[in-house]
Amino acid sequence: MINTLAYAAPSATAPLGPSTIARREPTASDVHIEILFCGVCHSDLHTARSEWPGTLYPCVPGHEIVGRVVAVGSDVKGFVVGETVGVGCMVDSCQHCASCADGLEQYCESGMVGTYNAPDKHTGGYTFGGYSKAIVVDEKFVLHISDKLDPAGAAPLLCAGITTWSPLRHWNVGKGSRVGIVGLGGLGHMGVKLAHALGAHVTLFTTSANKRDDGLKLGADEVVISTDPDAMAAKANSLDFIIDTVSAPHNLDVYLSLLARDGVMTLVGAPPTPHPSPTVFNLIMKRRSLAGSLIGGIKETQEMLDFCAEHGIVSEIEVIQMKEINGAYERMLKSDVKYRFVIDLASLS
Amino acid sequence: MINTLAYAAPSATAPLGPSTIARREPTASDVHIEILFCGVCHSDLHTARSEWPGTLYPCVPGHEIVGRVVAVGSDVKGFVVGETVGVGCMVDSCQHCASCADGLEQYCESGMVGTYNAPDKHTGGYTFGGYSKAIVVDEKFVLHISDKLDPAGAAPLLCAGITTWSPLRHWNVGKGSRVGIVGLGGLGHMGVKLAHALGAHVTLFTTSANKRDDGLKLGADEVVISTDPDAMAAKANSLDFIIDTVSAPHNLDVYLSLLARDGVMTLVGAPPTPHPSPTVFNLIMKRRSLAGSLIGGIKETQEMLDFCAEHGIVSEIEVIQMKEINGAYERMLKSDVKYRFVIDLASLS
Repeated sequence: MINTLAYAAPSATAPLGPSTIARREPTASDVHIEILFCGVCHSDLHTARSEWPGTLYPCVPGHEIVGRVVAVGSDVKGFVVGETVGVGCMVDSCQHCASCADGLEQYCESGMVGTYNAPDKHTGGYTFGGYSKAIVVDEKFVLHISDKLDPAGAAPLLCAGITTWSPLRHWNVGKGSRVGIVGLGGLGHMGVKLAHALGAHVTLFTTSANKRDDGLKLGADEVVISTDPDAMAAKANSLDFIIDTVSAPHNLDVYLSLLARDGVMTLVGAPPTPHPSPTVFNLIMKRRSLAGSLIGGIKETQEMLDFCAEHGIVSEIEVIQMKEINGAYERMLKSDVKYRFVIDLASLS
Repeated sequence: MINTLAYAAPSATAPLGPSTIARREPTASDVHIEILFCGVCHSDLHTARSEWPGTLYPCVPGHEIVGRVVAVGSDVKGFVVGETVGVGCMVDSCQHCASCADGLEQYCESGMVGTYNAPDKHTGGYTFGGYSKAIVVDEKFVLHISDKLDPAGAAPLLCAGITTWSPLRHWNVGKGSRVGIVGLGGLGHMGVKLAHALGAHVTLFTTSANKRDDGLKLGADEVVISTDPDAMAAKANSLDFIIDTVSAPHNLDVYLSLLARDGVMTLVGAPPTPHPSPTVFNLIMKRRSLAGSLIGGIKETQEMLDFCAEHGIVSEIEVIQMKEINGAYERMLKSDVKYRFVIDLASLS
């Protein structure tokens, strides 16, 4: 085993602090990665604080990882020492079910293996995430990161990016699509950038009037303040596709009624308590759909990263030191981040 | 105007009884139809009793109409005197919006004109339905009924049939599709028959163990008693498409969890009070969709009628006399009908 410096939550209530974890010795199919940057996702906070069931401690969060290859196993074909790579929300899956065969490992019938807090078949323990100096990952779950991309800004593409890219692609968003993005946070700002780059007409819905200029700068064609009933009514039946990135419970009908016939609204966040029940009438009268989508598969993650390299897209970030993570969590709870914290792992030593 | 014998509800609380209504003189594009049979839909009851807002009295329900052409206007090209025809839930639409252009008049942007209780541009009043001896309808909303079909059994195809056919076709159900039908009533029994005839593997979900044999006879490959948790658990993640015909409020998660990845559940009935809010997790984890669907367009209604003629499909019915309608409503409220009442209009004189 390889002792590796990390930052861990020792319990649900204690702040994160320095820790040492054991990474496995790379197998023949593994890539050993020195982590340069790791994005900070809301899931990290939920898991570290046991706001979702099942957190094991010490817990090392982080699944928006960008690093440099320091070693590869003897069977590794796709990666070479020195190249910049990424690791997202998954580090393993069964590799033989229909979803894995379709390149949609996130829907693996046996359950994908999360980058942190998931059973680790190699060690018999559980996985540790990217708040650490290094990680060892099977090459099937390692992504190529173009040198054209800023490595810190690219980190959030591995979760926030793919979580919005996958539904945009699955529901065939492209030139002429009328797309709505609900919420301008880590996911929402990537949704705006990616939908815009795909050629869609993008309308951003936000409760914060002070985010209007940012929304337009990020690529939205229109920004609608969702608390303004007249502005919302003016958009009724006008959109083909909506990604709702808001995971706090809220009225879905307000957005479903914006969809044109056959429109689809996809939820990418699960609320801690249920949303109010959507009105069936709103689905029936225009043959609308309410759907959900979970991150994205490895193949489409690479596709997204290549697209971002081609179009010069990275996340809007605030780089922090590792020791600033606890304060960053507090700021995230106040939505005080534009639009993603990224940890510089050089600060961990 | 043409005085026409009908059966009408004089108010929300009074029983239906004999009445005389005025039908317009046929215009150049109209078909004048002597009504032979009219199916009895739950919507008739909801409207007659003002359980939905906006009922105008006297109210003549009925939108599953089969009759014989007695006259055609000078511009009518598609119909001849003497032929058997049908009229469903709509008698008009704007004819120039995108939905009308797509043959999906039920989603007309200006609102389709219902066969009863809708504004009638010809008379300045409102429309009267099929509980009557005759009706005058623009040929665009008249359907051909093959002589191969029993005219009484064909009547419910105009609403119960098309309401299940349209989503089956829209979501590409065919050979190899794994389809669930929830509820064995007027809509559900047509859903089973049509999905089976389209080549799908059909699983019927019902709360009534005594409907098992009927379900199998109607074409279901399997019948699952939905109150049996083990039987339901055994079907988890196994279906591609579900039509939920139950309009009483119920737990949607029980059925959403039966869908495989990318599966769709379509609601065809709107509950009087909301269903419990579905769990977002159930949508996200398998990229499932919850959708709605409203009857069907004229073109697809004709397609369905032709398919039924080819495959010998009609509704399972109990023919009643016009004067039995009030008792039939009471029996419908107890689900005491297998599976649709059809009024023989010869009994109205």
